[in-house]
Parts: sequence; structure tokens; C-alpha cells
Amino acid sequence: MASPITPRSTDFSAWYNDLVAHADLAEHSPVRGCMVVRPYGWAVWEAIRDYFDARIKATGHVNASFPLFIPQSFLAKEADHIEGFAKECAVVTHYRLKTDPKHGVIVDPEAALEEPLIVRPTSETIIWHSFQQWIRSYRDLPLLINQWANVVRWEMRTRPFLRTTEFFWQEGHTAHASAEEADAEARTMLEEYRVLAEDIMAVPVIPGVKSPSERFAGATQTYTIEGLMQDGKALQMGTSHNLGQNFGRAFDVTYTDANGELQTPYATSWGVSTRLMGALIMVHSDDQGLRLPPRIAPVQLVVVPIITEKTASRLPEIHAIVEGLQQELPHLRVKIDDDMQQRPGYKFAEWELRGVPLRMAVGPRDLDESAVELTRRDTGEKLQVPVAELATRIPQLLEEIQQTLYAQAREYRDAMTRTADTWEEFQRVITEERGFVLAHWDGTAETEDAIKKATKATIRCIPFAGDAAPGVCVYSGQPSQRRVLFAQAY
Amino acid sequence: MASPITPRSTDFSAWYNDLVAHADLAEHSPVRGCMVVRPYGWAVWEAIRDYFDARIKATGHVNASFPLFIPQSFLAKEADHIEGFAKECAVVTHYRLKTDPKHGVIVDPEAALEEPLIVRPTSETIIWHSFQQWIRSYRDLPLLINQWANVVRWEMRTRPFLRTTEFFWQEGHTAHASAEEADAEARTMLEEYRVLAEDIMAVPVIPGVKSPSERFAGATQTYTIEGLMQDGKALQMGTSHNLGQNFGRAFDVTYTDANGELQTPYATSWGVSTRLMGALIMVHSDDQGLRLPPRIAPVQLVVVPIITEKTASRLPEIHAIVEGLQQELPHLRVKIDDDMQQRPGYKFAEWELRGVPLRMAVGPRDLDESAVELTRRDTGEKLQVPVAELATRIPQLLEEIQQTLYAQAREYRDAMTRTADTWEEFQRVITEERGFVLAHWDGTAETEDAIKKATKATIRCIPFAGDAAPGVCVYSGQPSQRRVLFAQAY
Repeated sequence: MASPITPRSTDFSAWYNDLVAHADLAEHSPVRGCMVVRPYGWAVWEAIRDYFDARIKATGHVNASFPLFIPQSFLAKEADHIEGFAKECAVVTHYRLKTDPKHGVIVDPEAALEEPLIVRPTSETIIWHSFQQWIRSYRDLPLLINQWANVVRWEMRTRPFLRTTEFFWQEGHTAHASAEEADAEARTMLEEYRVLAEDIMAVPVIPGVKSPSERFAGATQTYTIEGLMQDGKALQMGTSHNLGQNFGRAFDVTYTDANGELQTPYATSWGVSTRLMGALIMVHSDDQGLRLPPRIAPVQLVVVPIITEKTASRLPEIHAIVEGLQQELPHLRVKIDDDMQQRPGYKFAEWELRGVPLRMAVGPRDLDESAVELTRRDTGEKLQVPVAELATRIPQLLEEIQQTLYAQAREYRDAMTRTADTWEEFQRVITEERGFVLAHWDGTAETEDAIKKATKATIRCIPFAGDAAPGVCVYSGQPSQRRVLFAQAY
Repeated sequence: MASPITPRSTDFSAWYNDLVAHADLAEHSPVRGCMVVRPYGWAVWEAIRDYFDARIKATGHVNASFPLFIPQSFLAKEADHIEGFAKECAVVTHYRLKTDPKHGVIVDPEAALEEPLIVRPTSETIIWHSFQQWIRSYRDLPLLINQWANVVRWEMRTRPFLRTTEFFWQEGHTAHASAEEADAEARTMLEEYRVLAEDIMAVPVIPGVKSPSERFAGATQTYTIEGLMQDGKALQMGTSHNLGQNFGRAFDVTYTDANGELQTPYATSWGVSTRLMGALIMVHSDDQGLRLPPRIAPVQLVVVPIITEKTASRLPEIHAIVEGLQQELPHLRVKIDDDMQQRPGYKFAEWELRGVPLRMAVGPRDLDESAVELTRRDTGEKLQVPVAELATRIPQLLEEIQQTLYAQAREYRDAMTRTADTWEEFQRVITEERGFVLAHWDGTAETEDAIKKATKATIRCIPFAGDAAPGVCVYSGQPSQRRVLFAQAY
């Protein structure tokens, strides 16, 4: 059977699009740049969301909900912020349609809004307007709020999950009494993102600080986690911002401190989005399809009965094995694919495409021998396992698969992380091999820009860890404080 | 201490608004008709949502996500649908702002969309556009999809939760091979809504069928559950629609049946929204504040230590009791309010206002006697309970409170449900006493309209149950098939 998936080596971008379409993750919609997230894709996102929502709450934050629309004047209150978002926003200007004898349905020109509304590209402004009411005394701080929301940025070139006009995310917004506390919060949430990426999604990431030119519009410091995709390009997977007093000042937020004096609070914001789905696909998948980490796989074990019409009477025995297993492992996410109209080979390919970590095949002979065949999606390895051992072996195997996916991704990432000490070497590695390049940078925006123009590589971050020795800028020859992380990026 | 809440008897509407504001449920936003849902309010909504999401999945549906925006031409494809929604929709006409030397930031006139986009008021059209791709064969049916989403309807008069420009809901959208199956689906989901209202929210409802003039725009049949608020007005709490083949036809959806013939599928849609929060408030609350049913209360038990600075050393003993309790009852949602800067009396009032079902007060003498004082929010009853019995008594009490809230609401509703057999009686009851009135109706839209004009009462539903004997229309004297349910409504 010919695979519907373009091989990675032929065309990485076509491979990605094929996976998104054929693994039932998402599809294009008739609205430019907006995607339809299909049930299987949404189930993966729900698994990520449920894990992280629990972490948000465990770290002392509470969820709330702020309006979808932002008055145009709000967006304009913080100068960098409007600069960053004005060029890519959906604007609501009218509140009614009407029927027109000539053109059918038209926008009713008499229903123009006095002030246009922006569909939120991010919610700092509308949330800090509320914070102005909520924060009166030092006893109201820290204020630790999160919302799960859809946001809209009018992107010109879109790709499913990676860059879409509408996307889904959580946005944390917090207020603190001191600059230090705000910075600690921003770093705490970045660390939560690192754990989400590495321990849950099995995607190794490099955490660090953005250079000033890559900061969020309105931030004094932006922290990031950066992953490396299988085509050697980097993906920014989550950012956390120390916003200083910019939004507090823009929205006139003050509180009375313990000494009775008026102060302006310090802010953070932080978000991860459906973009994470893109990382999941591009880091783990192969030419057969997705490979989902067990911790977020909507189906962890798929059971394929090897049954014909002649042996259909034995199907109840297979169901009995699965029911027994489900009783011993109530949290295991199992699916039995007992559609008699499809052949096992087709089903195997289908569930490989969808990245289910473990497959169990059971036929009459297996039933006679009280054993089943398990196949690992990560390695393709097949194991004969006695039915009596399933409840212990399956959780072990799922854990092994989780670790193997991480180890494989880590091995690739490490092999593709190089140092470059001359401009020639830097150019060659970035353009011929891609990957992460650790190189010295003189700290100026001019050099950063020149490197970007020459190689399309940007500074992904100044890593928290790694070689911090000073040196000489790979481009300008000027002194450099430490190596920073370069890559071409999505 | 003066209550911040206007008494129900003084001004029901002010009472409602006070509760919404002071119990930290929601507040007005600077965007006309949009609300900010505050953390406590959002936690209640999350409890409702989590319960119902599990039911949606248990009944075989899967979640997905469709775009926020709907092309104007889509909305126009189904004639009744555009008629129903054109007058109240937010229209995106531009995709960029720009800075203008004179006016600051303005909408960029050069960034007009070719076709305006409507912020979804409901998603039938955009979803049936996808269904056109998804449904090819009878084997693709039934297709059972749900999404949790924000929707926008440009309402002129808004009230928090009851009628807001942006609101939150789930919308189920399904496709079926037969009219009977679609109708059964619509009724199954209405029954789920009844259980949600009655068993989870403790709000008694009357399920039934809408009269043709009250149907959803584009439906062939609309089912509803109707609750009665404490001011005698009805609230439509959830609706489920049999859409027939209207959307299948409008979006050219066909499939090949088992005989190889082309067919058009039958549709349903069904939704409950944050409007349910309004019912929760208006059915159960009193002049002291909310009274939340334990099954959806974000905090089921609040512990207030009766401790002064002198006795602060005993606080760890109180924490130990709560930790022990939490170990025995891991699902119990407990909060300890050990803020030493507020007095117990203030805290009691605060948690009553927020409707926490059970309060535990513990002071040094209680510790000496190994007993605590529990206070029920529903009845105000105080009980001395030995610490050793807490783990058995608390779940019993929570269950009793759940039942009592339902019984009280049911008693009110039943007392306020009357029959009227003459037009004078009908008018008197509806205008002087309000409540539900079961009366005969001749089945015509003219009579329905005349009754509405005279009394503001509408037909809430033709109940599934109850007196189905024929009679004579209370207004026109014409023959009536059965009594229907009238009320003034939100």
C-alpha cells in the first residue's frame, strides 16, 4: 500500500502538511489562515492543555476570562505594544448586516461602531484595565491570573499550527510588588514550559533570554524555550515576559504599599499555544506518520483483532482481555479497532500514521496460547507478551517509549548543535547543515541584523546554561560576553 | 455589618447585579455588553463544563474546533438562519491599523477585506461546510461533533451571564442518516441537559418542544428546558434542535447510502451556555448571597480558624485536622481561610456571600474537645461534629444540601405553576403573580402573538409530560390540543 505521506527527505514541508492532513490533526478552513482542528488533533491539544492547566493551578494561579474584543484606544496605550500588533489585527467596525435588493446581504452602513474593536491578538491591555480595578493594596498582590483563549493575528503566510490567523493558547498575566518577584515569576513559568516540553512532550529545549530585538512588544525581558525540528530549523515553543512597569503605567494602576505609599506594580505575561502541536509533529514523526509521546497520546494502546468472518466467534475473548486490562489499568487510554470491514494491514498503517505508541494484535492462535503481540511505534520492535503480564508490561513499555522518544530527539538535537568560531564556518554550518550554532556575538542589534540578512539565522536565545566564557564576535570581531544560540527558525 | 446586597424583595434586578459583583462572579468590561468573568465565577463555569464535557464524550461525541470567523456569504446560505442572526453580529471588515499623524491610530482604509467576516454567533454554517468534506459514505454517519467556544451576538440590552455580547458555550453538531435518528439525538441531548440542570445544578426544569415561532433560526424542531427564577420569570436554560436537512441542503452535503444512492444527511445542534450561571444565581441565592449546589461548588467546605494572636500556636492543629480530612476525602474541595488580618465574622459573611455549602469553625475549645462546628449554607443549621466523624458526616451533609437546594427550588417552582382556564384568570396570574401558567392554546402564531402583546408572556414550551387532554384556547376560545406552558421570560 502506497503511503499518502511525502518522505521527509523529499520535501520536509510537504511531509509536514501531509501528516497534518492524513493523521486527522487539522485542515484548512474557508477563512484565510484559520484552521479547523479535527477531533484527533483537538484530543492531543486537550491532553497538553489538561496537563498544563493543572500545573497553572498547582503554581497558585487562577483562571478567568476577559473579552475577545479590545477597544482600539487600549491597544494604543502602550507604544511598543501597538507598534507590534497594529499591522496584523482583525478589526470589527460594524455590528449588523442587512439585506440589500441589489447585492443580497451587505454590511449595514448605519451600524458603524463609534470606536473600532480589535479581536485580541493578546490580552495585556484589556487585562490591565481590569487590574486597575482589582489592585488597590499590597495585600492584593501578587495577582496571578491565567486565561485559555483564542487569539487572532492577521498573518500573511500561514501554516497549520505553526502560524495561523486564529490560534489557541493560555496567557498568564500577573502583577507583583517588586521587580525581582516579577522576574522570578517569569522564570518560574518558563521552567514550567521546559518541563511541559521535555517531560510531557518529550521535546528537548534550550531555555534562555531573548536578545532585545526579539523581545515581546512591551516587555523589558523575554524568556524562551527553543526546540529543534528535524529539518534543522528552530521553533520558539513558549515565551515568558517580564513586562516591568510598562502596562502598570499605561493603565494607571497603583496600589498602596505597607507604608501607605502609592506604587506601580510589576507585570509578567507568558503563553504557550497550539504551535506546540507543530513541534510535536516535526520533532517525533517519521515517514510512516506521527509518533506521539504516551503521556499525551489520546490513544496509548490500540488493539487490532486478527479475526476473519470464520473466527468472529472469538471476538468476545479479545474484548474480555481488554476489559480485564482496563480494570487493572483504569487510566490506560485503549481503543479496540474491531471494524470488520477493514483488513489488519490497513489498520496497522492507519494507527501508525496517527502515532499510537503501542499496538496489540490478537488472533485465534494468540488466544489459544494466552499471549498477544505488542508492537512499539517508536522502534517498530515486536514482543510476544503473555496476557497475564500485560498489566505490568504495558505501563513499562509506555514509559520506555516516552524515554526513547526523548532520547532520540535529544540525540538529534545534540548532534545538530555546533559551535562556530569564524564567519565562514558560521555561514557554512547555518546554510548547509542548519541546526543550532553557538557563536560569539558583540551584543549589538546591527550585528544581529547583518547576520540575519546574510544567513536568515536569528539569535534564538542567550542560553541560561552552557559555555559562558567571553570571546570575539563571529561577525564583527568585537568583544563578546558569551556564546549565544543561533538558528534559522520557523 | 451592613450587607452589600440589595434584598430580593426590594429590587430583584439590583439583587442579581449585586450578587454577580460582590460574589466575585463577573463584572462589566469596557467593551459594550462583554463581561469579565472573575476567577470565582470562572471556577463555577469550569465545574459545569467539566461535568458536561465528560457527558458529551460518554455519549459518543468528540470535540473539535472550527474558526471564530464565518464568511458573510456562508451565513446567507440558509435563509432563516441569516434572518435570525444578521441583525446582531460583529463584522470584521479590515485586517490592519495604521498610525495617522492627525488621529493617532486609525483603521487602515487600504486593508479592507474582500468579503467581510462575521464573528460566529453560532457555527452551523462553518461546520456544515466542513461536514461537506467529511461525509462521503453512510459509514461516516452518525458524525457526532462538539466544540466549546466563545460566540458573539450584538445584543442591545445586556445583563451579566443572561444576555451578553460575547458568551461561552458548547455547541454540538451532528449528522445522521435518518430523520428519526436525528430527532432521537436531539432528544437525547436535551435529556442530558435536564440531568445537568436537575441533578448537578439542582435546578428543576420543564422539558418540552418550542412553538414554531420560538424555534431556532433554521430548525425544524427545537427542544428546550425551562427553569423558573425566584421572581417568577422563566429562563430558557438549554436548547436542542432537529435541523432536518436544511443545512445539508444549503451546504450541498451528500453521501452514498448502502444501496449506492446519493442522500442528504439530517442534522442536529444543541447548546448550553454561561447563561446557566444566571439560573444558578437566580434560583438558589438569598439575601446573604449565593447558595451553590455542592456538586459544582469550587469550594465545598471552608474552614475558618477561630484563632487570635494569643492562640495562634494552635493553628497547626487545625491544619492537621484538614490535612487528615483531605487524605480521607481526596476529592473534597476544601479551603482554609487563615488570613489573620480578618475577623471570623467578616469571613463567615464573605463565604456565605460566595455560597460555599459548608463552613467549619474551629477554635481552641473545639480542639480541646476534638469537635468542630459545621454550618450549612442552605438552612443555616449549626452542628457540633466530632473530628473523628468528619470524614463520614461531610459527604452526607453535602449530599443533603444538594437535595435540599433542589427540593426548595422544586417547591417554589411547583407552587408557582398554575393552570388558567379563562383569559381574565390568565392575565391576572401572569401579570400579578407571574410564574408558569399551563393554559390551552389554539396552536396559531396569531394567538401566541396576541397573548404576548397583552401580557408579555410567551409559550415557553409544549411540555413532554403533564396534562395532555384537549380543551379550549384561553384566548380565542378555539379548540386546543393540550395545555402549553406560558410565562414571562428572560
